[in-house]
This record gives sequence, C-alpha cells and structure tokens, in this order.
Amino acid sequence: MPGGGNRTEIRRRVLWWRGEDFLGVVVPLSETKETGSGIADLVELVAADMERVNQLILSKAGSDVDMIPAIASHLIDSGGKRLRPMLTLAAAGSYGYDGDGHVSLAASVEFMHTATLLHDDVVDESDMRRGKASARMVWGNQASVLVGDYLLGQAFKMMVEVGSLDCLRILSNAASIIAEGEVMQLSTAKNVETTEDEYLAVIRAKTAALFSAAGEVGPIIAGAGKADQAAFRSYGTNLGLAFQLIDDALDYGGNSQSLGKSVGDDFREGKVTLPVVLAYRRGSSDNRAFWKRCLETGEILDADLQTAIGLMREHRAIEDTVERARHYGAIARDALAPIKATPQKQALLDLVDFCIRRAY
Amino acid sequence: MPGGGNRTEIRRRVLWWRGEDFLGVVVPLSETKETGSGIADLVELVAADMERVNQLILSKAGSDVDMIPAIASHLIDSGGKRLRPMLTLAAAGSYGYDGDGHVSLAASVEFMHTATLLHDDVVDESDMRRGKASARMVWGNQASVLVGDYLLGQAFKMMVEVGSLDCLRILSNAASIIAEGEVMQLSTAKNVETTEDEYLAVIRAKTAALFSAAGEVGPIIAGAGKADQAAFRSYGTNLGLAFQLIDDALDYGGNSQSLGKSVGDDFREGKVTLPVVLAYRRGSSDNRAFWKRCLETGEILDADLQTAIGLMREHRAIEDTVERARHYGAIARDALAPIKATPQKQALLDLVDFCIRRAY
Repeated sequence: MPGGGNRTEIRRRVLWWRGEDFLGVVVPLSETKETGSGIADLVELVAADMERVNQLILSKAGSDVDMIPAIASHLIDSGGKRLRPMLTLAAAGSYGYDGDGHVSLAASVEFMHTATLLHDDVVDESDMRRGKASARMVWGNQASVLVGDYLLGQAFKMMVEVGSLDCLRILSNAASIIAEGEVMQLSTAKNVETTEDEYLAVIRAKTAALFSAAGEVGPIIAGAGKADQAAFRSYGTNLGLAFQLIDDALDYGGNSQSLGKSVGDDFREGKVTLPVVLAYRRGSSDNRAFWKRCLETGEILDADLQTAIGLMREHRAIEDTVERARHYGAIARDALAPIKATPQKQALLDLVDFCIRRAY
Repeated sequence: MPGGGNRTEIRRRVLWWRGEDFLGVVVPLSETKETGSGIADLVELVAADMERVNQLILSKAGSDVDMIPAIASHLIDSGGKRLRPMLTLAAAGSYGYDGDGHVSLAASVEFMHTATLLHDDVVDESDMRRGKASARMVWGNQASVLVGDYLLGQAFKMMVEVGSLDCLRILSNAASIIAEGEVMQLSTAKNVETTEDEYLAVIRAKTAALFSAAGEVGPIIAGAGKADQAAFRSYGTNLGLAFQLIDDALDYGGNSQSLGKSVGDDFREGKVTLPVVLAYRRGSSDNRAFWKRCLETGEILDADLQTAIGLMREHRAIEDTVERARHYGAIARDALAPIKATPQKQALLDLVDFCIRRAY
C-alpha cells in the first residue's frame, strides 16, 4: 500500500480498519473522521512520516535478485495495517522528535513483522494471507523462508544505521523472543488442552514483543527517560495482547451475530486460540471430543464451524476473550497515563479502544 | 495454630478468614458454614490432612538449638492462613490420593512460605507481622535470616524424603523464582514509576510462583497427567495473583468505606503496590509529587494516609485493582474447569470467589 500522506489514502486506511472496502470514492475526511474514538487521528498524525517509511520500505525491499522485490512487495503492498510502524512514529512524535531515526526504526519494525508473516505461512502451511494467495503458494516455501531472512537482515542493517545501541538491543531481543514464541507455538498449535497461561505466553512472545519494542524505541530515539521508555514498552505489550485476542475473537465472528467472510480461518488451520481454550475447558466431555477431532486430528466437516461458534456462544468463550482483551487494554491505557499530553498520546489511547471495539 | 481436625478449629479458621476474632464460643458449624461460596468447605475437606501437616511442621521446626523452635513457632503459631498447604492437600485429595506424600509436600510449601516471611521482614525492616512483633524485632535480623535458611533446608529435606523428582524440580524452581522476585522488588520497592507490568512480574515471582508450585505438586504426587498438572499450575498462579492484588487493595481499605485496623501498613513501609501504581499514573503532577514524597523519600505525615486513600478513590485505583484481581480469578477458574468434578475442585473454585470477595 504505497503513499500515506494524502486524504484519500487516509480515508482508505480508515475504511480498511473498519473492515470496509475502499471503492475509490473520495469522501471529505471531515465526514468520516471519528474524532477521539477511532484510528483517523493516528493515521493523520503519522501520515507524513509514514510516507517516508513507505518509500524506505520500497527501496530496502529492492534487490537485483528478482524474486526478492516480487515476494516482498506481494506482502508489503497487500494492505497490512502498518500498526507497528505507526506506533513507533507516534511514540517518537509525541516527544516532538524531528530527526530521521524513527522512520528507519519504523521500517525495520515492519520488515521484522513481514519476515515473521512469510515464515509463519510456511510453518502453518497457509494457503491464503490477507485475502490473496500466500507468498509460499506463489513462489514456494524455500523462497518464502529465504526472503524472510533477507528482510530480517535488511531490518538489522537499517537499525544499525540509526546507530542507537539501546534500540538495537531492544529490537534484536524482540526478534529472538518472537522466534522463541513461534517455537513455543509448535507445541500448543494443535493441543486443545493448552491452558490460557500457556497461550498467553505464546502471544506475549509472538505478537506482543514486537508491539512492545515498536513502542519502546520511540521514546529512546527521541531521548526520553527511563520512565517513558517503560511506559511505552508496557503500552506496546498490552496493546499487542489486546489486539491479538480481539483478532482471535474476530476469527469466530467477534461479538457480532453476522459472520464476516474471513471467519473460521484459525479453525480450519487447527489453531488453538483463546476462544477455543475457553470453550474447550468449559465444555462437556462431548464438546471436548468435538474440539479434539476438529483441531487435533484435523477432521473438519462442513457444519463444524457453525457448531464451533455455537459452542463458543454457549460457553461465552468469545465474550470472555473480548473481556480478557479489555483487561490488557486497560493496562495499556494506564501504562501511558503519566506521559505528557500530546495529540499522539491521545491517538494511541484511542487506538486501544478502537482495537477492542473491532470485536463488536 | 495447632490442630485442624475438629469443628472448633474449623470454625476458628472460618472466622479468621472472615477477619473476625475467635472468642472460643462454639457455634454449631451448620449455622456458620458458607456452603458453596466460602472457605469452610475447603477447610473441612482438608482438616484431617492439615492436622497431620501441623504435627509435621511442629516436629520439623524442632531443633536442639533453642532459638530455632522459638522463632519458627513464633511465626508458625501466629495464625497464618495455611492457604498454600491447603491448596496442595486439596489438589492431591481431588484425585483420591491416600498416601503421605502430600502431607510432607504441604509442610514443605508452608516452610518455604515461612522462610520467605522471615527474610522479607529483615529486607523490609518490618516491625510487625500478623499483629505482633516480627521475629527480627524479638530475636534480631541475623537469627531471622538464619532460621529462614534452616526452614528452607528442612523444606528441601522433606521434599527429598517424598522422593518425587518432578515435585523437587517444581518446588526448587519456585524457591529460586521467589528469591529472584524479592531481588526484583528491591528495585521497584520505593519507585512509584513502576509500571503495572513490572509490578505484576514481581508478584508473579514473589507470590504466585509458590501458589503455582503448591497446586502443581498435588496432581503430580497423585499420579495425574500433564493436562491436570498444567491446570493446577495455572490455577495456582492466577489464584496467587488475585490473592496478592486483593491483599494490596485491602491494605487501603478495599472497596469498603470502613477502614480496618491494619490499613496503611504497605503505605507506611513505602511499598509500591498496584493501587499506588494506578493512582500515581492516573494522577496530576501534584498527586505524583505527593506519592513521591510519601513513598520514595518516606516523609509521611499523619494525614497522608487519608490523602492517599482519597486519591485512590478519586482515580478508582482500588476498584480497578480489584477488577484486575477478578481477571486473574477468572483465569484461575477456567484453568480448573476441565478437572473432574469433586468436592475439592468445587471448594477451590469457591476459594477464588472468596479471595476476591474479601475486598468488599
């Protein structure tokens, strides 16, 4: 998704976030902006910097090896949320930082995320990603693994150029924790007996660690103190947890009765997420046999997704997943509370509510 | 507190839990038993085993070195809740375990807890513990440290006698995590800028790790499988977190308007607990200066406790501490959900509610 610094682009991103397609109709921003409770303020605040991040991403994903830009742009152009780099930009921006470091750090963070997605799809044998064929289905597993490695290498090169050892320490630590989380997930992937704590440990590593690092490098590059770093680190961690849990809930339709078109992906892939953990633990022994058949042995019949969603509703598994997400969202908000009031801070507080409201 | 296997003793424990003094009046148990929502069922279920634990504790706290039994019984007889050994006993009991191992493990767990208290009081320079002079005030710091070490040694000896390497691994791991948590706490102790995540990491290590181990050794000694071990491990962890957070809230009067006699201990000792973390982060810069003066520099005036409680009420810091505790309580309940229905399981589920209701 190129661009980012104009109103049409902002509108496109807002619609994307709301799960609506962008049809190219230019609606005046003033009519759609959800002031104080949405994503539009954040998108707008970081729009100019994000334009620079996008340019940097396009240039750093380039290579004389043809397959590299092809695979990278397949994923990079496919409409990711750019949430992690937005976090880095807004965090640095809230201190009035006017250098270039945050742009490189934000691009690094997005590359780390993209590399993870490439590797994830290989590990999970996923056919689809963001509504189109996954890179591994087009170019194969080997190329996906190696281009992921290439992007990770480029991410580190960009970080090194920024020259902050603290940022390098935090982001390289996150890279290692993410990989650890992926390995952890291998053992929980098809195990419906996974406890909530075990699942939390996985997403804390796999998802929250990068949000945390993306937040923390903002105050660091801007020269803010330890307490501010800790605030953004904690904000990122807990936003990441809330974000992942809401994603998990949305995969079973969220709290809305209408089922979106992408409902059931996790189920079909045998992923054990929190709604499954809760429904399994709260269910009868018959229920548990159902979950084991579907997710452990992978024998999924046409009607099973509806049965799964029915069991989740019966045991309040989706509602309570959202409730758990609220808890982490509340911690994220309190983490940021002592930070100086700025439009960026307000936009990041709104982001927490917005992430959680997606489930309704 | 010797005994445990008779109705008077049970009644005494129930009253203790309810924060009421036991005046020796024998009230028929049927009139006081809070079936399905209290602690009485749990106390009664483990009463016979707890009697054996108490005998073992008395015998293992003995030594030819006079000061050892004196200090040990000073603390052991002073009316601790025996919550951790009750958890071990109930967990093993829920599998119908009829050996002796759980009694030794429960006594070990209580010794580990007692050793921690002895060392804690030295580190925190506490004058009082459970309403009477702390051991270090009577026998001095050196004796408190060394008798703590002695009890820890006795705890390990008892565990080794049980002969389960899995239990040894879990309890020795907990011992090391607890110590790590205490060291962590040194850096958060008087730092009001501590984030909620940092505080959670401390109590996860300092408090929840022993609850977790106390729970997990139950199914292990009873020969239950991995899923059951994970369930009790997770139950213990989250019960421990909820328990500690409610304790934190109670130290500022809980959600009740009436202030108990022990309110303010944490405040006077400069302990940064979650109610402080929330009130500090949510407060104005004037508020923050107040918290820094009281807790970091230790200049506490007579009216400061009331001001502190007032600020907490203004910022909903106590309510939200209880709300956070509810979250961990909910996870504890879900952790135990798939375990076979037994009176012990029900009593442990009730225990979660009971712990949280203490705050009202």
